[in-house]
Amino acid sequence: MRLAVKDNIDVQGLPTTAACPEFAYQPDRDAPAVAALRAAGGVVIGKTNLDQFATGLVGTRSPYGVVPDSRRPSHVSGGSSSGSAVAVACQEADIGVGTDTAGSGRVPAALQGLVAIKPTVGVISTDGVVPACESYDCLTIFARELALANRAMAVMAAGAPGRSWPADTRLAAPPNPVVAVPNELPELDEHWRAAFENAAAALADAGARIRAIDMTPFLAAARLLYDGALVSERYDAVGEFIDQHPDASLDSAVQRIIGGARDIPAHRLLRDRREVQRLYRRAMASLDGADALLVPTAPMHPSIVEVAADPIGVNARMGTYTNFCNLFDMCAVAVPAGTAGEAQFGVTVLGRAFDDAVALDIAARLTGDALSEASWPLAVARNVELVVFGAHLRAGPLAHQLTDLGASFAGAATTAPRYRMAVLDGDLPKPAVTRTPDGTVGTALTGHRWLLSPAALGTFLAALPAPMQLGKVELADGTWCTAFGCDAAVAAAGTDISCYGGWAAAIEAGAVG
Amino acid sequence: MRLAVKDNIDVQGLPTTAACPEFAYQPDRDAPAVAALRAAGGVVIGKTNLDQFATGLVGTRSPYGVVPDSRRPSHVSGGSSSGSAVAVACQEADIGVGTDTAGSGRVPAALQGLVAIKPTVGVISTDGVVPACESYDCLTIFARELALANRAMAVMAAGAPGRSWPADTRLAAPPNPVVAVPNELPELDEHWRAAFENAAAALADAGARIRAIDMTPFLAAARLLYDGALVSERYDAVGEFIDQHPDASLDSAVQRIIGGARDIPAHRLLRDRREVQRLYRRAMASLDGADALLVPTAPMHPSIVEVAADPIGVNARMGTYTNFCNLFDMCAVAVPAGTAGEAQFGVTVLGRAFDDAVALDIAARLTGDALSEASWPLAVARNVELVVFGAHLRAGPLAHQLTDLGASFAGAATTAPRYRMAVLDGDLPKPAVTRTPDGTVGTALTGHRWLLSPAALGTFLAALPAPMQLGKVELADGTWCTAFGCDAAVAAAGTDISCYGGWAAAIEAGAVG
Repeated sequence: MRLAVKDNIDVQGLPTTAACPEFAYQPDRDAPAVAALRAAGGVVIGKTNLDQFATGLVGTRSPYGVVPDSRRPSHVSGGSSSGSAVAVACQEADIGVGTDTAGSGRVPAALQGLVAIKPTVGVISTDGVVPACESYDCLTIFARELALANRAMAVMAAGAPGRSWPADTRLAAPPNPVVAVPNELPELDEHWRAAFENAAAALADAGARIRAIDMTPFLAAARLLYDGALVSERYDAVGEFIDQHPDASLDSAVQRIIGGARDIPAHRLLRDRREVQRLYRRAMASLDGADALLVPTAPMHPSIVEVAADPIGVNARMGTYTNFCNLFDMCAVAVPAGTAGEAQFGVTVLGRAFDDAVALDIAARLTGDALSEASWPLAVARNVELVVFGAHLRAGPLAHQLTDLGASFAGAATTAPRYRMAVLDGDLPKPAVTRTPDGTVGTALTGHRWLLSPAALGTFLAALPAPMQLGKVELADGTWCTAFGCDAAVAAAGTDISCYGGWAAAIEAGAVG
Repeated sequence: MRLAVKDNIDVQGLPTTAACPEFAYQPDRDAPAVAALRAAGGVVIGKTNLDQFATGLVGTRSPYGVVPDSRRPSHVSGGSSSGSAVAVACQEADIGVGTDTAGSGRVPAALQGLVAIKPTVGVISTDGVVPACESYDCLTIFARELALANRAMAVMAAGAPGRSWPADTRLAAPPNPVVAVPNELPELDEHWRAAFENAAAALADAGARIRAIDMTPFLAAARLLYDGALVSERYDAVGEFIDQHPDASLDSAVQRIIGGARDIPAHRLLRDRREVQRLYRRAMASLDGADALLVPTAPMHPSIVEVAADPIGVNARMGTYTNFCNLFDMCAVAVPAGTAGEAQFGVTVLGRAFDDAVALDIAARLTGDALSEASWPLAVARNVELVVFGAHLRAGPLAHQLTDLGASFAGAATTAPRYRMAVLDGDLPKPAVTRTPDGTVGTALTGHRWLLSPAALGTFLAALPAPMQLGKVELADGTWCTAFGCDAAVAAAGTDISCYGGWAAAIEAGAVG
């Protein structure tokens, strides 16, 4: 697996420049996230160009040269993870490792027709990464397929753990997620607007319920990232270096942004952070009842000449739909979604903090990827198994009780041939599964396996009515797994349907009334 | 119930002064926390004096006069919630409502011989409170008894909710908690040192396992609160008012502290916050394996003259054991612990974020309070019930599986007379409880009730081996509760011990081998 690593991330043996030759240093070890990818078989084929100090969304702000678009060299690549994105788009690398503070992963992914996964802030350690805006910096993965990006994320998340996952982390999107879309689409021309509407329509066709929401707080926060005092974090990161190296090869826009933050007083930063929190509460209220938010990733694809004519202005517009994400502690998955005029078009599925698996699931419906492997948060968020036999089977009438709690479907399960299934009549017939006494013959029953958070399992159990019980069943391979059981007397009174080997077969055979 | 409310908290009908007459305003409604206490029957008997803008730990920094100690008028009361503490100490009020950023609740509680509960930062809304250092401000409750403070906290937490509680919140301390104590006690003279050692010994007698830990990161963070750029939050709070009112009745120490923070650059605040985070990680590593940290609350009890001679220096020393708490997102319960020389002495039990019930439990062992009511986090943190019949009874050999997960004992439970108990032999004999078939006679069985977080219940179930199951049992009052059941065939093979009515009685009768 060939890795292209953005040059603000440490790779042992190669200098880290952050696109400033005078800033370069020789790291004495890999950033833990890179080390994890290498340990899993990744080969670093090179460090990649970026907008200097990861400050930009365009890919033109580097003394090492402008990174052109992979298809239309007159256009920008998007940035700041410009080189990592283009290396993957040109198939020189399989996986691009980048960073994303304001959209530095998502924007180039969109313009280069790639997927990018931008995790919840802090869940992957940013040790060994040159900070851009430390409170909001994230590592990000580019790939041509969502499945590969997911695999790389699982490796990084397990190998470079940061902030720990809550005990009620959702591990999948529900089958019919509610997806919010903006009630206004500023900065998009008609081609881009049409492309976005197509993507939303495709998601609706894939089962999502689309709902327009007020974008005001999101857009307002996006503007705060560069226009307010938050930019003082960028001075905190590399300002001292800039002050001490007046002759360094600094990009003029980057120098203006970072240098201009030197004298911002602390009380202004506090005021702006309070405003972010106020907007955050409004934004989350706006998202209430929705599982995720779908937005266009970038609003346009400017040419290199257009960016040169107005480097700050064009850059700011590029961040319209990305800047707010990390300020609001959201996760994101950017995916390609056709074209808008001559440009490649992309959309981003945004989730609340720790809803990474939800966002990934919804994004996969857009790309049509079948994620054969588990979504990456399952590699790190605590989860437990539950085997079900009846109404909670994937297509069963009560499966929503599990999916509403973020349970992730994990395939079929078969018990050891030691069980009996009886049918309990009622408004909703249910199977009662009990173990046959030692020394007697039983049946191997088929069921489904779900993965869910510990809190989801506890909540599910607390709401489970008699006569159902949860305990352990022996599986065909001899392991024991948490599964449905039933009160003994009630089970004994039910009609034995073990001969069908499972609930679905019993229903098909007409044995369940 | 008579309430004394610190005068930086809004009470409708009374001005809020924050101990600065020129700052005073007439709030148009109660702070939500006060509203909740009033709705529960509290009567505000008055607003109380404080260190101006809640900036101080002494109780002398107010144009309304120095608040003297309730017993030795030559000495300070402690602050900044000076008036609320003294009003409760003098029995003029039953409950004092204060705020605590650096120790403003805990320090006066210690000097006045009171208890104070300082919740995890943010779990109780500080709406309607004049900010002191907004990221770290908390409401706090003073009372003469822990049980009453606990009751008031439950009311405020439910009525003025803030930050939500994690799904794995611990709801009680384990029976033999590990309590960390400082490996050094700076600022304490021999009397105070002896008093602290007595308190630690008393806690050990009450079942705690005491372990000395490195206090360096805690003490270093305590110094950062006033000595570094964090104080810019105080300028953010009221600096503009001070600048615009040069003739206001400002305490000179307060003016020096807040005015001095005007020009601190944002990048210095970011640097100091990063240092707090670094120290936080070290401190939490130091606490690893401990349930709580026990410290002296204040290191001394200065006279009014001593404070006047060195207002900034003495104040700083007073915060040695309190300043770090909110920076580290910890909760705290301050309790009286005898005397140190002429002074009243107090200790504080500190817990990690959301370990409020753990800290309260441990504090109650020091005061000897029997908290007849549930600890206040149970009023707000999600929790579920589990009824147990055998090895998980409170004194049973497997109860630690529940208490290790933070389960809180909630008394006895009796089932409806519809159950059968059999004994399952093994290394550890267990009871199998099954419901008797409809129309047959059963027994009312006794058990114990635990409250635990949803994640704890899920984790417990995931680890529960066959043949045990969890489902619902019908209680004597006709309600159904999550409880232990058992695999049918295994239960049927056990010896019936229903006649004893419960596991403890069966053991006593020699029916369990």
